[in-house]
Amino acid sequence: MPLSKRAAAEFFGTFWLVFGGCGSAVVAAAYPQLGIGFVGVALAFGLTLLTMAFAIGHISGCHLNPAVSVGLVVGKRFAIGDLWAYVVAQVLGGIAASGVLYLIASGKEGFSLSGGFASNGYAAHSPDHYSLAACFIAEVVLTAFFLLVILGSTDERAPKGFAPIAIGLCLTLIHLISIPITNTSVNPARSTGPALFVGGWATSQLWLFWVAPILGAAIGGLISNFFFAAPQEPIREEMSRG
Amino acid sequence: MPLSKRAAAEFFGTFWLVFGGCGSAVVAAAYPQLGIGFVGVALAFGLTLLTMAFAIGHISGCHLNPAVSVGLVVGKRFAIGDLWAYVVAQVLGGIAASGVLYLIASGKEGFSLSGGFASNGYAAHSPDHYSLAACFIAEVVLTAFFLLVILGSTDERAPKGFAPIAIGLCLTLIHLISIPITNTSVNPARSTGPALFVGGWATSQLWLFWVAPILGAAIGGLISNFFFAAPQEPIREEMSRG
Amino acid sequence: MPLSKRAAAEFFGTFWLVFGGCGSAVVAAAYPQLGIGFVGVALAFGLTLLTMAFAIGHISGCHLNPAVSVGLVVGKRFAIGDLWAYVVAQVLGGIAASGVLYLIASGKEGFSLSGGFASNGYAAHSPDHYSLAACFIAEVVLTAFFLLVILGSTDERAPKGFAPIAIGLCLTLIHLISIPITNTSVNPARSTGPALFVGGWATSQLWLFWVAPILGAAIGGLISNFFFAAPQEPIREEMSRG
Amino acid sequence: MPLSKRAAAEFFGTFWLVFGGCGSAVVAAAYPQLGIGFVGVALAFGLTLLTMAFAIGHISGCHLNPAVSVGLVVGKRFAIGDLWAYVVAQVLGGIAASGVLYLIASGKEGFSLSGGFASNGYAAHSPDHYSLAACFIAEVVLTAFFLLVILGSTDERAPKGFAPIAIGLCLTLIHLISIPITNTSVNPARSTGPALFVGGWATSQLWLFWVAPILGAAIGGLISNFFFAAPQEPIREEMSRG
Repeated sequence: MPLSKRAAAEFFGTFWLVFGGCGSAVVAAAYPQLGIGFVGVALAFGLTLLTMAFAIGHISGCHLNPAVSVGLVVGKRFAIGDLWAYVVAQVLGGIAASGVLYLIASGKEGFSLSGGFASNGYAAHSPDHYSLAACFIAEVVLTAFFLLVILGSTDERAPKGFAPIAIGLCLTLIHLISIPITNTSVNPARSTGPALFVGGWATSQLWLFWVAPILGAAIGGLISNFFFAAPQEPIREEMSRG
Repeated sequence: MPLSKRAAAEFFGTFWLVFGGCGSAVVAAAYPQLGIGFVGVALAFGLTLLTMAFAIGHISGCHLNPAVSVGLVVGKRFAIGDLWAYVVAQVLGGIAASGVLYLIASGKEGFSLSGGFASNGYAAHSPDHYSLAACFIAEVVLTAFFLLVILGSTDERAPKGFAPIAIGLCLTLIHLISIPITNTSVNPARSTGPALFVGGWATSQLWLFWVAPILGAAIGGLISNFFFAAPQEPIREEMSRG
Repeated sequence: MPLSKRAAAEFFGTFWLVFGGCGSAVVAAAYPQLGIGFVGVALAFGLTLLTMAFAIGHISGCHLNPAVSVGLVVGKRFAIGDLWAYVVAQVLGGIAASGVLYLIASGKEGFSLSGGFASNGYAAHSPDHYSLAACFIAEVVLTAFFLLVILGSTDERAPKGFAPIAIGLCLTLIHLISIPITNTSVNPARSTGPALFVGGWATSQLWLFWVAPILGAAIGGLISNFFFAAPQEPIREEMSRG
Repeated sequence: MPLSKRAAAEFFGTFWLVFGGCGSAVVAAAYPQLGIGFVGVALAFGLTLLTMAFAIGHISGCHLNPAVSVGLVVGKRFAIGDLWAYVVAQVLGGIAASGVLYLIASGKEGFSLSGGFASNGYAAHSPDHYSLAACFIAEVVLTAFFLLVILGSTDERAPKGFAPIAIGLCLTLIHLISIPITNTSVNPARSTGPALFVGGWATSQLWLFWVAPILGAAIGGLISNFFFAAPQEPIREEMSRG
C-alpha cells in the first residue's frame, strides 16, 4: 500500500476523530436536560476510533494520532521513515475537521468560540481547574497505557480482529477519566485543530498536548517492548483479515 | 437469495430501526429524572442496526436506508437493478413502524403528534435551531463518513464478522453528534415514516433528508473507491460466515 | 449434554438476568444525582444476557426466558420435549434471584416492596401509564423482533461467535424503548420473580407478561422460518466454538 | 512465559484497573451537570478490564484481582504455586495506581481524601447505607457470578477471542448493580489501594473486601467445576490467538 494512500486514510480518519469527538462535545454535551454529558462525549471519541479502525485499520493501521505514531515507532511496529507523512496528514485532518465543525456550529445563533470549542487546557483552562503538573502527569500516564493497549491487542499472540474494539473503547475509557482534567487530549492532532480556531490561551497551552502525549506514548512503547514480541508485523497487518 | 426475500428482510429491518430508534426517542428520552436522553436514543438507533446486521446481514446486507443503498451502488457493492426494491421496502418498513409506534404512543393520555414524533427538521424545526445550511452540511458529512465505515469494514481485507459492530456503533456515534442539529437522519426512510404522521412542517422539510443523505452517501462511495478494492463481493456476502 | 445440566445452567443464567437487571433497577436507578437511570438499567439487563450467553451459551443455548424457549421451538431450533425443564428452571431461577435481591435490598433502611420491586405492569401500573392495549402490543412486537434477532444471529450463515453480542445488546435496546411502557418484560420468568414478592396488583397483572411475550415469540419464530434455514443445529451448537 | 513477566503484566493491568476505575469515580462522576455518574464509573471499570484482557490476557490471563486468581485455582485453571506472585503484583499495582491518582487528584484545589477516594465500605460507609449483611451477601453473589462468566467464557467450548468482552462488560454490569451498596469491590486489590490512602474507617472495613470476594470467587469456581470441563488449558492460553 503506497504511503500516499495510507496518509490519505490517516487524513480522513483523523478528520472523523476530531469532527465526531469534538463535535459531540460542542454540539450535544450540554443540551438542556437531554444532553449527552461527558459519558456521551467519551463514547463519541471512542467510537470514532473504533469505527475507523475497522474501516481503515487494514490500510494505514489507523493511528489518527501523532503520539500513537511515535509510540509505534518506539515499539518497533511502524517505520520511522513514514512518520512525517502520517503526522502531517493527521494534523491536517484535525484542522479540516475543526473547520467543518466551525461551519456547522456557527449555524446556531449565539455560538461563540469563547466557549472553548472543545480545546484542551490546563490550570485556569482545565475544565475543573487542575494544576499544570496534574494535567501533565495525567496526559503522560493515560497515553502510556493507551499505547500498551494498542501494542498488546495487536500483538501476534492476541486474538485477531478484536483490536479495534479494545483500542476504541480504551479511548472512551481515557475520556471517562480525564475530561475534567484537561478536556482529554492524548492526541496532539486532536488538540491542534480546535486550538488554531480559538487562538489565545488555547494555542499558548498547546505545547503540553504535544509534549506530554508523545512522552507518554514513548514510555508506553518502551514498556511494551518488555512484554510484546517486537519487532513483528506492522500494525496494519494485524488489523487485516487472515 | 431471491430479491423478494431480501426486500422482505429490508422491510423488517427498517421497521426495527425506525420503531426502536424513534420509539426510544418518543417514549423514553424525556421521562422525568430517569429518562434516557440523547445518549440513550443514540444507543438505541445504533443497536437497531447492530442487531439487524447480525440477524439479516447475511440475507440482504442490511442496508435499511435508501442513502446507504445508493452509496453501495456508487461503491460498486450493490447492483443498481435491485435498488428500487430495496428502497420501496425500506420506506414501507419505516412507515409501518411509525404506525405501530403511533398505536402504542397514543395509548398514553396526553400524547400528541405536535411533540414532533421524532421527525427530522432544520432551522425553526432543528432541535437546537441550527440553520438550513448547517443542517445540510451536517447530514452530507455524516452520511459520507457512514458509508466510508460501511464500505471499509466490509472490505475484503477487513477482519470478517465485525462489520455489524462497526456499522451499528457508527450510527450511535452519528446520533451522539447530531441529534441537536437535525434530530439526526442520514436515512431518508427513517425520516419519511414519522413525517407522514406529523404532516405540515415535517413533510415540507422532508426533501432535505432525502437530498443531503443521498448526496453524502454518493460522496462516501466515491471516496471509498479510492481506498477499497471495489468491485468485490456484494456486501451481504461479507456479512456471512466463512 | 444431559438435560439436567442444561436446565441447571438455565437456572443460574436466569438468576443472573433477574438479579442483575432488576437489582440495578431497585438499587441504582434512582440514586440521587449519580443514579444510572433507565439507560443504566437497560445496559444491565442486556449485559446479564450477553455475559451469560458467552458463559453458558455452549451448554444450554442460554434462553433464560420461557418466551424465547417457545419461540425457538416454533423456529425449529429447540426440542419441544425439553421445554418444560427449561421453563421450570427459568422460573425458579427468577424467583430465587428475587429472594436474594430482597435480602440485600431490605438491608437498606426504608426499603419497601411498595416501590414496585421492578415488577412489570400495565395501565395504572405502567411506569408512564400506558393503556393495557399499548402495553400488550409493545410486548408482542418487541418479543417478536427479539426472536428474529436471536434466530437470525445464530443462523448457520451468520458470522459465528458474535450472537451473544447481538442478543444481549438487543435486550438492552428493548429496554431503552419500553421501560416507561411496561417496565419491560419480554420474559415471563423475569416478570414472575418480582411479582410473587410484591403480590396484589403485580400478580394480578402477571398474565399479560406470560401471554404477550409468548405470543410475540411465536410470531417471531414463524417470521424467522421464512428467512432462516430451519431446522438446523440447535442454538447451543451455534453458540459453541468451531 | 516466565512468572516474573506474568506478574509484571498483572502489576500494570491492576494499575490500570484501579487508576481508571477509581480515577473516573474521583475525577469525573460528580462533575456538575455533565458528570459521568455511576453509569460512567461502571463503564470505566469494565473497560479497564476489557482493554487489558485484550492487551495482556495472552501474557498473564489478566486476572487483575486476587479473588479471581483464587477462583481460578478452585476452577483448576491456574496453578496454586503462582498465586502468591500474582496477588502481590495485583496489590502493589493497586497501591501504585492510588498513589498516582492521589498526585493528580490533589492537583485540584479543595481536594480531600475525606471524600472517600473511591474506597469501599459497608453500613455507615456504604454509599446508600446498606447493612453489613447486605454488603457481604452482595459481594459474595456478585463475585461468584463474575467467576462463572470468566470460567464459562474461557471454557474450551466457548467461542474463542470473545472472553475479554464478556469479562470486561461483566465488571461493568456488577458496578451497575452495586455501587450504591458497597461502592463495588469484588476485588481485594482494588479495595486495598484507596483504603491505604484514606485510612481510618476504610482500612478497618477492608477485611470484608478480602473475605467476601474471595469466598464468592471460590463458590463460583466450585459451581463452574460442575458445568465446565476443568482442568483444561490455563486461562491465558484461551485468551491467545489460534
